[in-house]
Amino acid sequence: MTINSNTNILIVGLGVIGGGYADALTKKGYKVSCITKEQKDIDYALSRGMITYGTTQIEKDLVYNADIIIFALYPTVFIKWIEENQHLFKPGCLITDVSGVKSSVIYKVQSVLRGDVEYLSHHPMAGRERSGVEFADKNVFLGANYIITPTEKNRSESIETLKELGNIIGFGQISLLSAEEHDEMIAFLSQLTHCIAIVLMNCNSTPHLEKYTGDSFRDLTRIAKINDRMWSELFLMNKAQLLKQMDAFLEEFKNLKSLIEEDKCDELREMMKASTLRRSLFDKPDTQDKK
Amino acid sequence: MTINSNTNILIVGLGVIGGGYADALTKKGYKVSCITKEQKDIDYALSRGMITYGTTQIEKDLVYNADIIIFALYPTVFIKWIEENQHLFKPGCLITDVSGVKSSVIYKVQSVLRGDVEYLSHHPMAGRERSGVEFADKNVFLGANYIITPTEKNRSESIETLKELGNIIGFGQISLLSAEEHDEMIAFLSQLTHCIAIVLMNCNSTPHLEKYTGDSFRDLTRIAKINDRMWSELFLMNKAQLLKQMDAFLEEFKNLKSLIEEDKCDELREMMKASTLRRSLFDKPDTQDKK
Repeated sequence: MTINSNTNILIVGLGVIGGGYADALTKKGYKVSCITKEQKDIDYALSRGMITYGTTQIEKDLVYNADIIIFALYPTVFIKWIEENQHLFKPGCLITDVSGVKSSVIYKVQSVLRGDVEYLSHHPMAGRERSGVEFADKNVFLGANYIITPTEKNRSESIETLKELGNIIGFGQISLLSAEEHDEMIAFLSQLTHCIAIVLMNCNSTPHLEKYTGDSFRDLTRIAKINDRMWSELFLMNKAQLLKQMDAFLEEFKNLKSLIEEDKCDELREMMKASTLRRSLFDKPDTQDKK
Repeated sequence: MTINSNTNILIVGLGVIGGGYADALTKKGYKVSCITKEQKDIDYALSRGMITYGTTQIEKDLVYNADIIIFALYPTVFIKWIEENQHLFKPGCLITDVSGVKSSVIYKVQSVLRGDVEYLSHHPMAGRERSGVEFADKNVFLGANYIITPTEKNRSESIETLKELGNIIGFGQISLLSAEEHDEMIAFLSQLTHCIAIVLMNCNSTPHLEKYTGDSFRDLTRIAKINDRMWSELFLMNKAQLLKQMDAFLEEFKNLKSLIEEDKCDELREMMKASTLRRSLFDKPDTQDKK
Protein backbone atom coordinates (compact mmCIF):
# COMPACT_ATOMS: atom_id res chain seq x y z
CA MET A 1 0.00 0.00 0.00
CA THR A 2 1.30 3.44 -0.94
CA ILE A 3 0.32 6.27 1.35
CA ASN A 4 -1.29 9.11 -0.56
CA SER A 5 -3.85 11.85 -0.04
CA ASN A 6 -6.69 9.35 -0.43
CA THR A 7 -5.37 7.00 2.24
CA ASN A 8 -7.59 7.01 5.30
CA ILE A 9 -5.31 7.14 8.33
CA LEU A 10 -6.88 6.55 11.73
CA ILE A 11 -5.00 7.26 14.94
CA VAL A 12 -6.29 5.69 18.13
CA GLY A 13 -5.07 7.48 21.25
CA LEU A 14 -4.32 11.19 20.95
CA GLY A 15 -1.48 11.73 23.39
CA VAL A 16 2.07 12.96 22.90
CA ILE A 17 2.88 10.40 20.21
CA GLY A 18 -0.55 10.02 18.61
CA GLY A 19 -0.98 13.79 18.57
CA GLY A 20 2.50 14.37 17.16
CA TYR A 21 1.96 11.81 14.39
CA ALA A 22 -1.46 13.31 13.59
CA ASP A 23 -0.03 16.81 13.34
CA ALA A 24 2.94 15.76 11.18
CA LEU A 25 0.70 13.82 8.76
CA THR A 26 -2.10 16.37 8.55
CA LYS A 27 0.27 19.29 7.96
CA LYS A 28 1.77 17.34 5.05
CA GLY A 29 -1.65 16.98 3.46
CA TYR A 30 -2.68 13.50 4.57
CA LYS A 31 -6.16 12.62 5.84
CA VAL A 32 -6.06 11.84 9.55
CA SER A 33 -8.99 10.95 11.81
CA CYS A 34 -8.75 9.96 15.41
CA ILE A 35 -10.48 8.11 18.19
CA THR A 36 -9.56 9.11 21.70
CA LYS A 37 -11.07 9.14 25.18
CA GLU A 38 -11.52 12.83 25.90
CA GLN A 39 -13.53 15.32 23.87
CA LYS A 40 -11.26 18.15 25.07
CA ASP A 41 -8.29 16.52 23.35
CA ILE A 42 -10.24 16.33 20.09
CA ASP A 43 -11.24 19.97 20.44
CA TYR A 44 -7.62 20.91 21.04
CA ALA A 45 -6.41 18.95 18.00
CA LEU A 46 -9.16 20.30 15.74
CA SER A 47 -8.51 23.90 16.78
CA ARG A 48 -4.85 23.49 15.81
CA GLY A 49 -5.52 21.69 12.55
CA MET A 50 -3.86 18.49 13.77
CA ILE A 51 -6.71 16.19 12.62
CA THR A 52 -9.57 16.39 10.15
CA TYR A 53 -12.03 14.45 12.29
CA GLY A 54 -12.13 13.12 15.83
CA THR A 55 -14.53 11.16 18.02
CA THR A 56 -14.64 9.67 21.51
CA GLN A 57 -16.75 6.76 20.22
CA ILE A 58 -15.54 3.68 18.39
CA GLU A 59 -17.54 4.54 15.28
CA LYS A 60 -18.04 1.51 13.01
CA ASP A 61 -17.80 3.36 9.71
CA LEU A 62 -14.72 5.28 10.75
CA VAL A 63 -12.87 2.11 11.68
CA TYR A 64 -14.10 0.24 8.61
CA ASN A 65 -12.98 3.02 6.27
CA ALA A 66 -9.46 3.17 7.65
CA ASP A 67 -6.63 1.89 5.46
CA ILE A 68 -3.98 2.34 8.13
CA ILE A 69 -4.67 2.39 11.85
CA ILE A 70 -1.99 3.61 14.22
CA PHE A 71 -2.49 2.70 17.87
CA ALA A 72 -0.80 5.02 20.37
CA LEU A 73 -2.19 3.55 23.58
CA TYR A 74 -0.84 1.91 26.70
CA PRO A 75 0.23 -1.61 25.67
CA THR A 76 -2.40 -3.36 27.79
CA VAL A 77 -5.13 -1.03 26.50
CA PHE A 78 -4.05 -1.68 22.92
CA ILE A 79 -4.29 -5.46 23.33
CA LYS A 80 -7.74 -5.15 24.88
CA TRP A 81 -8.89 -2.79 22.08
CA ILE A 82 -7.93 -5.36 19.45
CA GLU A 83 -9.69 -8.18 21.29
CA GLU A 84 -12.90 -6.21 21.63
CA ASN A 85 -13.08 -4.35 18.31
CA GLN A 86 -11.20 -6.25 15.63
CA HIS A 87 -14.45 -7.32 13.98
CA LEU A 88 -14.76 -3.68 12.79
CA PHE A 89 -11.57 -3.64 10.69
CA LYS A 90 -11.78 -3.53 6.90
CA PRO A 91 -10.25 -6.65 5.32
CA GLY A 92 -6.74 -5.82 4.10
CA CYS A 93 -6.19 -2.88 6.38
CA LEU A 94 -2.78 -2.42 8.01
CA ILE A 95 -2.57 -1.84 11.72
CA THR A 96 0.48 -0.72 13.67
CA ASP A 97 1.28 0.48 17.18
CA VAL A 98 3.97 2.51 18.90
CA SER A 99 4.33 0.42 22.08
CA GLY A 100 7.68 0.61 23.83
CA VAL A 101 7.89 -3.17 24.33
CA LYS A 102 7.39 -5.67 21.55
CA SER A 103 7.56 -9.42 22.29
CA SER A 104 4.86 -9.31 24.94
CA VAL A 105 2.58 -7.24 22.70
CA ILE A 106 3.20 -8.51 19.18
CA TYR A 107 2.82 -12.24 19.74
CA LYS A 108 -0.29 -11.72 21.83
CA VAL A 109 -1.94 -9.52 19.20
CA GLN A 110 -0.89 -11.65 16.24
CA SER A 111 -2.24 -14.76 17.96
CA VAL A 112 -5.74 -13.31 18.35
CA LEU A 113 -5.94 -11.17 15.21
CA ARG A 114 -8.15 -11.97 12.21
CA GLY A 115 -6.27 -13.49 9.29
CA ASP A 116 -7.37 -10.86 6.77
CA VAL A 117 -5.80 -7.94 8.60
CA GLU A 118 -2.07 -7.33 8.92
CA TYR A 119 -0.43 -6.07 12.11
CA LEU A 120 3.12 -4.74 11.86
CA SER A 121 4.55 -3.02 14.91
CA HIS A 122 7.06 -0.17 15.14
CA HIS A 123 8.68 2.05 17.76
CA PRO A 124 9.44 5.77 17.37
CA MET A 125 12.53 6.55 19.46
CA ALA A 126 11.37 9.99 20.47
CA GLY A 127 8.92 11.42 22.91
CA ARG A 128 8.55 13.89 25.70
CA GLU A 129 8.56 13.44 29.45
CA ARG A 130 5.03 14.83 29.66
CA SER A 131 1.84 13.20 28.61
CA GLY A 132 -1.19 14.60 26.82
CA VAL A 133 -1.88 15.99 23.35
CA GLU A 134 -1.07 19.54 24.47
CA PHE A 135 2.57 18.45 24.72
CA ALA A 136 2.55 16.79 21.31
CA ASP A 137 5.22 18.24 19.03
CA LYS A 138 5.83 16.85 15.56
CA ASN A 139 9.38 18.23 15.60
CA VAL A 140 10.59 15.69 18.18
CA PHE A 141 10.46 13.06 15.42
CA LEU A 142 12.71 14.94 13.00
CA GLY A 143 15.89 12.96 12.52
CA ALA A 144 14.98 10.55 15.32
CA ASN A 145 15.41 6.79 15.06
CA TYR A 146 12.46 4.62 13.98
CA ILE A 147 12.38 0.87 14.41
CA ILE A 148 10.09 -1.56 12.60
CA THR A 149 9.73 -4.99 14.21
CA PRO A 150 8.42 -7.50 11.66
CA THR A 151 7.66 -11.15 12.38
CA GLU A 152 7.41 -13.98 9.87
CA LYS A 153 3.73 -13.12 9.48
CA ASN A 154 4.50 -9.74 7.91
CA ARG A 155 4.78 -9.03 4.19
CA SER A 156 7.59 -6.93 2.72
CA GLU A 157 4.97 -4.67 1.15
CA SER A 158 3.73 -3.69 4.60
CA ILE A 159 7.27 -3.07 5.80
CA GLU A 160 7.66 -0.65 2.87
CA THR A 161 4.43 1.11 3.88
CA LEU A 162 5.66 1.58 7.45
CA LYS A 163 9.00 2.87 6.16
CA GLU A 164 7.08 5.36 4.06
CA LEU A 165 5.10 6.42 7.13
CA GLY A 166 8.35 7.02 9.04
CA ASN A 167 9.80 9.03 6.17
CA ILE A 168 6.69 11.20 5.86
CA ILE A 169 6.73 12.01 9.57
CA GLY A 170 10.38 12.98 9.27
CA PHE A 171 12.27 10.26 11.12
CA GLY A 172 15.98 9.84 10.39
CA GLN A 173 17.43 6.35 10.59
CA ILE A 174 14.81 3.67 9.89
CA SER A 175 15.78 0.14 11.00
CA LEU A 176 14.35 -3.35 11.23
CA LEU A 177 14.77 -5.49 14.34
CA SER A 178 13.14 -8.65 15.56
CA ALA A 179 10.87 -8.23 18.58
CA GLU A 180 13.50 -9.95 20.74
CA GLU A 181 16.35 -7.76 19.50
CA HIS A 182 14.18 -4.70 20.05
CA ASP A 183 13.35 -5.66 23.61
CA GLU A 184 16.97 -6.34 24.52
CA MET A 185 18.07 -3.04 22.98
CA ILE A 186 15.27 -1.02 24.55
CA ALA A 187 15.92 -2.50 27.99
CA PHE A 188 19.38 -0.97 27.85
CA LEU A 189 18.88 2.28 25.90
CA SER A 190 15.58 3.34 27.34
CA GLN A 191 14.34 1.35 30.31
CA LEU A 192 17.64 1.23 32.21
CA THR A 193 18.11 4.97 31.73
CA HIS A 194 14.63 5.62 33.12
CA CYS A 195 15.46 3.38 36.10
CA ILE A 196 18.60 5.39 36.76
CA ALA A 197 16.75 8.71 36.61
CA ILE A 198 14.10 7.44 39.02
CA VAL A 199 16.74 6.14 41.42
CA LEU A 200 18.67 9.42 41.32
CA MET A 201 15.56 11.31 42.38
CA ASN A 202 14.88 8.86 45.21
CA CYS A 203 18.33 8.25 46.74
CA ASN A 204 19.07 11.66 48.22
CA SER A 205 16.49 13.82 49.95
CA THR A 206 18.75 16.73 50.94
CA PRO A 207 16.63 19.88 50.58
CA HIS A 208 17.47 22.74 48.21
CA LEU A 209 19.83 20.77 45.97
CA GLU A 210 18.29 22.62 43.03
CA LYS A 211 20.20 25.74 44.16
CA TYR A 212 23.49 24.05 43.48
CA THR A 213 22.85 21.79 40.54
CA GLY A 214 24.43 21.99 37.11
CA ASP A 215 23.14 20.74 33.78
CA SER A 216 24.64 17.25 34.14
CA PHE A 217 22.23 16.37 36.89
CA ARG A 218 19.36 18.06 35.07
CA ASP A 219 20.12 16.02 31.94
CA LEU A 220 20.39 12.72 33.79
CA THR A 221 17.07 13.26 35.53
CA ARG A 222 14.95 14.93 32.83
CA ILE A 223 13.18 11.60 32.30
CA ALA A 224 12.56 11.18 36.04
CA LYS A 225 9.34 13.04 35.23
CA ILE A 226 7.64 9.91 34.15
CA ASN A 227 4.20 8.58 33.27
CA ASP A 228 4.02 6.00 36.05
CA ARG A 229 1.19 3.98 34.53
CA MET A 230 2.85 3.58 31.17
CA TRP A 231 6.37 2.95 32.43
CA SER A 232 5.39 0.46 35.10
CA GLU A 233 3.66 -1.50 32.31
CA LEU A 234 6.73 -1.24 30.08
CA PHE A 235 9.12 -2.33 32.84
CA LEU A 236 7.04 -5.32 33.90
CA MET A 237 6.22 -6.42 30.34
CA ASN A 238 9.94 -6.52 29.56
CA LYS A 239 11.08 -7.69 32.97
CA ALA A 240 13.58 -10.41 31.99
CA GLN A 241 15.48 -8.17 29.58
CA LEU A 242 15.41 -5.19 31.92
CA LEU A 243 16.72 -7.19 34.88
CA LYS A 244 19.56 -8.48 32.70
CA GLN A 245 20.57 -4.94 31.78
CA MET A 246 20.24 -3.75 35.38
CA ASP A 247 22.62 -6.52 36.44
CA ALA A 248 25.17 -5.62 33.77
CA PHE A 249 25.00 -1.99 34.87
CA LEU A 250 25.38 -2.96 38.54
CA GLU A 251 28.43 -5.06 37.82
CA GLU A 252 30.20 -2.27 35.93
CA PHE A 253 29.17 0.31 38.55
CA LYS A 254 30.75 -1.83 41.26
CA ASN A 255 33.85 -2.18 39.12
CA LEU A 256 34.14 1.61 38.87
CA LYS A 257 33.56 1.91 42.60
CA SER A 258 36.46 -0.49 43.30
CA LEU A 259 38.79 1.56 41.11
CA ILE A 260 37.95 4.65 43.15
CA GLU A 261 38.26 2.83 46.47
CA GLU A 262 41.67 1.51 45.52
CA ASP A 263 42.91 4.81 43.99
CA LYS A 264 43.51 3.11 40.64
CA CYS A 265 43.93 6.33 38.72
CA ASP A 266 45.28 4.82 35.49
CA GLU A 267 42.47 2.27 35.19
CA LEU A 268 39.97 5.02 35.98
CA ARG A 269 41.35 7.14 33.17
CA GLU A 270 41.22 4.19 30.77
CA MET A 271 37.56 3.68 31.58
CA MET A 272 36.89 7.39 30.95
CA LYS A 273 38.78 7.30 27.66
CA ALA A 274 36.68 4.32 26.57
CA SER A 275 33.45 6.11 27.49
CA THR A 276 34.54 9.27 25.65
CA LEU A 277 35.33 7.29 22.52
CA ARG A 278 32.17 5.22 22.56
CA ARG A 279 29.89 8.16 23.33
CA SER A 280 30.98 9.99 20.18
CA LEU A 281 29.11 7.32 18.17
CA PHE A 282 25.86 8.50 19.72
CA ASP A 283 25.94 12.12 18.64
CA LYS A 284 22.82 12.94 16.69
CA PRO A 285 23.50 12.82 12.94
CA ASP A 286 24.14 16.27 11.45
CA THR A 287 23.91 17.97 14.84
CA GLN A 288 26.73 17.90 17.35
CA ASP A 289 25.23 17.66 20.82
CA LYS A 290 24.59 21.24 21.67
CA LYS A 291 26.20 21.51 25.08
CA MET B 1 37.05 45.50 46.72
CA THR B 2 34.61 46.68 44.08
CA ILE B 3 35.19 45.40 40.58
CA ASN B 4 35.40 48.26 38.08
CA SER B 5 37.08 49.07 34.79
CA ASN B 6 40.37 49.79 36.60
CA THR B 7 40.45 46.42 38.34
CA ASN B 8 43.23 44.22 36.98
CA ILE B 9 41.77 40.76 36.56
CA LEU B 10 44.20 37.93 35.82
CA ILE B 11 43.00 34.51 34.69
CA VAL B 12 45.40 31.61 34.99
CA GLY B 13 44.46 28.72 32.72
CA LEU B 14 42.60 29.51 29.51
CA GLY B 15 40.37 26.49 28.99
CA VAL B 16 36.61 26.13 28.80
CA ILE B 17 35.99 27.88 32.12
CA GLY B 18 38.90 30.33 32.13
CA GLY B 19 38.18 31.26 28.53
CA GLY B 20 34.45 31.65 29.16
CA TYR B 21 35.07 33.88 32.18
CA ALA B 22 37.60 35.95 30.22
CA ASP B 23 35.18 36.46 27.36
CA ALA B 24 32.25 37.37 29.63
CA LEU B 25 34.31 39.90 31.59
CA THR B 26 36.11 41.45 28.61
CA LYS B 27 32.90 41.88 26.61
CA LYS B 28 31.43 43.76 29.56
CA GLY B 29 34.34 46.20 29.55
CA TYR B 30 36.58 44.76 32.25
CA LYS B 31 40.35 44.43 31.93
CA VAL B 32 41.35 40.78 31.66
CA SER B 33 44.86 39.38 31.19
CA CYS B 34 45.78 35.75 31.18
CA ILE B 35 48.57 33.30 31.75
CA THR B 36 48.24 29.96 30.05
CA LYS B 37 50.44 27.16 28.73
CA GLU B 38 49.93 27.38 24.98
CA GLN B 39 50.57 30.38 22.75
CA LYS B 40 47.91 29.16 20.29
CA ASP B 41 45.24 29.53 22.98
CA ILE B 42 46.35 33.11 23.61
CA ASP B 43 46.28 33.84 19.89
CA TYR B 44 42.79 32.38 19.66
CA ALA B 45 41.55 34.47 22.61
CA LEU B 46 43.17 37.68 21.35
CA SER B 47 41.73 37.22 17.87
CA ARG B 48 38.25 36.96 19.35
CA GLY B 49 38.66 39.84 21.79
CA MET B 50 38.32 37.55 24.80
CA ILE B 51 41.36 39.00 26.61
CA THR B 52 43.39 42.20 26.45
CA TYR B 53 46.75 40.56 27.09
CA GLY B 54 48.08 37.02 27.35
CA THR B 55 51.38 35.29 28.02
CA THR B 56 52.72 31.77 28.43
CA GLN B 57 55.23 33.02 31.02
CA ILE B 58 54.60 33.74 34.67
CA GLU B 59 55.48 37.41 34.28
CA LYS B 60 56.30 39.06 37.60
CA ASP B 61 54.76 42.46 36.84
CA LEU B 62 51.59 40.94 35.45
CA VAL B 63 51.03 38.87 38.58
CA TYR B 64 52.01 41.73 40.90
CA ASN B 65 49.61 44.15 39.21
CA ALA B 66 46.64 41.83 39.49
CA ASP B 67 43.89 42.77 41.94
CA ILE B 68 41.92 39.57 41.40
CA ILE B 69 43.41 36.31 40.16
CA ILE B 70 41.11 33.55 38.98
CA PHE B 71 42.69 30.11 38.71
CA ALA B 72 41.04 27.76 36.24
CA LEU B 73 43.51 24.86 36.41
CA TYR B 74 43.45 21.21 37.38
CA PRO B 75 43.26 21.15 41.21
CA THR B 76 46.72 19.62 41.65
CA VAL B 77 48.26 22.10 39.19
CA PHE B 78 46.61 24.98 41.04
CA ILE B 79 48.06 23.90 44.40
CA LYS B 80 51.53 23.56 42.90
CA TRP B 81 51.25 26.98 41.21
CA ILE B 82 50.50 28.61 44.55
CA GLU B 83 53.39 26.87 46.28
CA GLU B 84 55.86 27.92 43.60
CA ASN B 85 54.69 31.44 42.74
CA GLN B 86 52.89 33.00 45.66
CA HIS B 87 55.84 35.31 46.38
CA LEU B 88 54.78 37.24 43.26
CA PHE B 89 51.31 38.24 44.53
CA LYS B 90 50.59 41.88 45.43
CA PRO B 91 49.72 42.25 49.12
CA GLY B 92 45.97 42.52 49.48
CA CYS B 93 45.11 40.81 46.22
CA LEU B 94 42.21 38.37 46.13
CA ILE B 95 42.69 34.96 44.63
CA THR B 96 40.00 32.46 43.74
CA ASP B 97 39.70 29.19 41.84
CA VAL B 98 37.00 27.19 40.09
CA SER B 99 38.03 23.70 41.22
CA GLY B 100 35.29 21.10 41.35
CA VAL B 101 36.33 19.81 44.78
CA LYS B 102 36.88 22.04 47.76
CA SER B 103 38.02 20.54 51.11
CA SER B 104 41.11 18.89 49.66
CA VAL B 105 42.08 22.08 47.81
CA ILE B 106 41.06 24.93 50.10
CA TYR B 107 42.66 23.75 53.35
CA LYS B 108 45.88 22.85 51.58
CA VAL B 109 46.14 26.24 49.86
CA GLN B 110 45.11 28.25 52.91
CA SER B 111 47.68 26.40 55.02
CA VAL B 112 50.58 27.40 52.78
CA LEU B 113 49.39 30.82 51.59
CA ARG B 114 50.97 34.12 52.68
CA GLY B 115 49.00 35.98 55.33
CA ASP B 116 48.67 39.18 53.32
CA VAL B 117 46.77 37.59 50.43
CA GLU B 118 43.20 36.29 50.64
CA TYR B 119 42.04 33.10 48.96
CA LEU B 120 38.31 32.54 48.60
CA SER B 121 37.19 29.62 46.49
CA HIS B 122 34.07 29.24 44.35
CA HIS B 123 32.50 26.76 41.91
CA PRO B 124 30.62 27.65 38.73
CA MET B 125 28.01 24.93 38.14
CA ALA B 126 28.31 25.02 34.38
CA GLY B 127 30.73 23.79 31.80
CA ARG B 128 31.00 21.77 28.66
CA GLU B 129 31.99 18.19 28.04
CA ARG B 130 34.88 19.32 25.87
CA SER B 131 38.11 20.93 26.93
CA GLY B 132 40.07 23.79 25.43
CA VAL B 133 39.48 27.51 24.94
CA GLU B 134 37.94 26.93 21.51
CA PHE B 135 34.95 25.39 23.27
CA ALA B 136 34.66 28.25 25.78
CA ASP B 137 31.23 29.87 25.67
CA LYS B 138 30.27 32.64 28.06
CA ASN B 139 26.59 31.82 27.58
CA VAL B 140 26.81 28.56 29.52
CA PHE B 141 27.07 30.62 32.71
CA LEU B 142 23.86 32.60 32.13
CA GLY B 143 21.39 31.69 34.85
CA ALA B 144 23.60 28.85 36.11
CA ASN B 145 24.26 28.21 39.79
CA TYR B 146 27.38 29.67 41.44
CA ILE B 147 28.66 28.53 44.78
CA ILE B 148 31.08 30.42 47.03
CA THR B 149 32.81 28.33 49.70
CA PRO B 150 34.19 30.59 52.44
CA THR B 151 36.13 29.40 55.48
CA GLU B 152 36.62 31.25 58.76
CA LYS B 153 39.69 32.89 57.22
CA ASN B 154 37.60 34.80 54.68
CA ARG B 155 36.27 38.34 55.10
CA SER B 156 32.72 39.29 54.21
CA GLU B 157 34.09 41.99 51.92
CA SER B 158 35.75 39.34 49.75
CA ILE B 159 32.56 37.30 49.67
CA GLU B 160 30.82 40.39 48.31
CA THR B 161 33.51 40.78 45.66
CA LEU B 162 33.06 37.18 44.51
CA LYS B 163 29.28 37.63 44.43
CA GLU B 164 29.84 40.68 42.25
CA LEU B 165 32.07 38.61 39.94
CA GLY B 166 29.34 35.99 39.62
CA ASN B 167 26.72 38.62 38.86
CA ILE B 168 28.87 40.28 36.21
CA ILE B 169 29.47 36.97 34.44
CA GLY B 170 25.73 36.37 34.47
CA PHE B 171 25.21 33.52 36.90
CA GLY B 172 21.73 33.01 38.35
CA GLN B 173 21.46 31.69 41.88
CA ILE B 174 24.53 32.59 43.99
CA SER B 175 24.93 30.55 47.19
CA LEU B 176 27.35 30.06 50.06
CA LEU B 177 28.32 26.60 51.29
CA SER B 178 31.07 25.31 53.54
CA ALA B 179 33.75 23.25 51.78
CA GLU B 180 32.33 20.12 53.39
CA GLU B 181 28.75 20.87 52.37
CA HIS B 182 29.97 21.61 48.86
CA ASP B 183 31.84 18.34 48.57
CA GLU B 184 28.92 16.29 49.79
CA MET B 185 26.56 18.06 47.39
CA ILE B 186 28.93 17.83 44.43
CA ALA B 187 29.57 14.13 45.02
CA PHE B 188 25.87 13.55 44.43
CA LEU B 189 24.91 16.15 41.83
CA SER B 190 27.99 16.01 39.67
CA GLN B 191 30.42 13.19 40.42
CA LEU B 192 27.84 10.42 40.79
CA THR B 193 26.17 11.48 37.53
CA HIS B 194 29.53 11.35 35.72
CA CYS B 195 30.12 7.87 37.19
CA ILE B 196 26.76 6.72 35.86
CA ALA B 197 27.45 8.09 32.38
CA ILE B 198 30.85 6.36 32.28
CA VAL B 199 29.35 3.08 33.45
CA LEU B 200 26.54 3.27 30.86
CA MET B 201 29.12 3.58 28.10
CA ASN B 202 31.13 0.64 29.45
CA CYS B 203 28.48 -1.93 30.40
CA ASN B 204 27.11 -2.86 26.98
CA SER B 205 29.25 -3.26 23.89
CA THR B 206 26.52 -4.28 21.43
CA PRO B 207 27.45 -2.68 18.10
CA HIS B 208 25.27 -0.13 16.26
CA LEU B 209 23.16 0.83 19.28
CA GLU B 210 23.35 4.42 18.01
CA LYS B 211 20.93 3.43 15.22
CA TYR B 212 18.23 2.73 17.76
CA THR B 213 18.81 5.22 20.53
CA GLY B 214 16.49 7.98 21.65
CA ASP B 215 17.28 11.22 23.44
CA SER B 216 17.03 9.74 26.95
CA PHE B 217 20.17 7.73 26.44
CA ARG B 218 21.89 10.62 24.71
CA ASP B 219 21.06 12.89 27.64
CA LEU B 220 22.24 10.45 30.27
CA THR B 221 25.56 9.92 28.52
CA ARG B 222 26.39 13.40 27.21
CA ILE B 223 28.90 13.76 30.05
CA ALA B 224 30.47 10.38 29.25
CA LYS B 225 32.70 12.46 26.99
CA ILE B 226 34.96 13.35 29.83
CA ASN B 227 38.34 14.93 30.51
CA ASP B 228 39.91 11.87 32.10
CA ARG B 229 42.80 13.72 33.76
CA MET B 230 40.59 16.28 35.45
CA TRP B 231 37.82 13.94 36.49
CA SER B 232 40.07 11.22 37.87
CA GLU B 233 41.61 13.94 40.06
CA LEU B 234 38.18 15.17 41.12
CA PHE B 235 36.92 11.67 41.94
CA LEU B 236 39.98 10.69 43.97
CA MET B 237 40.25 14.04 45.79
CA ASN B 238 36.65 13.64 46.97
CA LYS B 239 36.74 9.89 47.38
CA ALA B 240 35.02 9.51 50.75
CA GLN B 241 32.02 11.64 49.76
CA LEU B 242 31.74 10.07 46.34
CA LEU B 243 31.81 6.51 47.69
CA LYS B 244 29.07 7.45 50.16
CA GLN B 245 26.86 8.71 47.34
CA MET B 246 27.63 5.69 45.17
CA ASP B 247 26.51 3.44 48.02
CA ALA B 248 23.27 5.35 48.50
CA PHE B 249 22.59 5.10 44.76
CA LEU B 250 23.38 1.36 44.75
CA GLU B 251 21.01 0.71 47.61
CA GLU B 252 18.11 2.51 45.94
CA PHE B 253 18.90 0.89 42.58
CA LYS B 254 18.71 -2.55 44.19
CA ASN B 255 15.45 -1.54 45.82
CA LEU B 256 13.98 -0.64 42.42
CA LYS B 257 15.30 -3.90 40.99
CA SER B 258 13.50 -5.89 43.70
CA LEU B 259 10.22 -4.12 42.94
CA ILE B 260 10.54 -5.16 39.30
CA GLU B 261 11.57 -8.72 40.16
CA GLU B 262 8.58 -9.10 42.44
CA ASP B 263 6.09 -7.38 40.07
CA LYS B 264 5.26 -4.78 42.71
CA CYS B 265 3.47 -2.47 40.33
CA ASP B 266 1.94 -0.17 42.94
CA GLU B 267 5.24 0.45 44.74
CA LEU B 268 6.92 1.01 41.38
CA ARG B 269 4.35 3.64 40.50
CA GLU B 270 4.80 5.31 43.90
CA MET B 271 8.53 5.56 43.28
CA MET B 272 7.89 7.09 39.84
CA LYS B 273 5.40 9.57 41.28
CA ALA B 274 7.99 10.61 43.87
CA SER B 275 10.65 11.09 41.19
CA THR B 276 8.27 13.11 39.00
CA LEU B 277 7.40 15.38 41.90
CA ARG B 278 10.96 15.88 43.09
CA ARG B 279 12.36 16.43 39.60
CA SER B 280 10.08 19.40 39.02
CA LEU B 281 12.13 21.30 41.63
CA PHE B 282 15.15 21.08 39.35
CA ASP B 283 13.75 22.80 36.28
CA LYS B 284 15.96 25.72 35.34
CA PRO B 285 14.47 28.96 36.67
CA ASP B 286 12.49 30.86 34.01
CA THR B 287 12.99 28.12 31.42
CA GLN B 288 10.98 24.95 31.41
CA ASP B 289 13.22 22.08 30.36
CA LYS B 290 12.94 22.17 26.64
CA LYS B 291 12.20 18.57 25.86
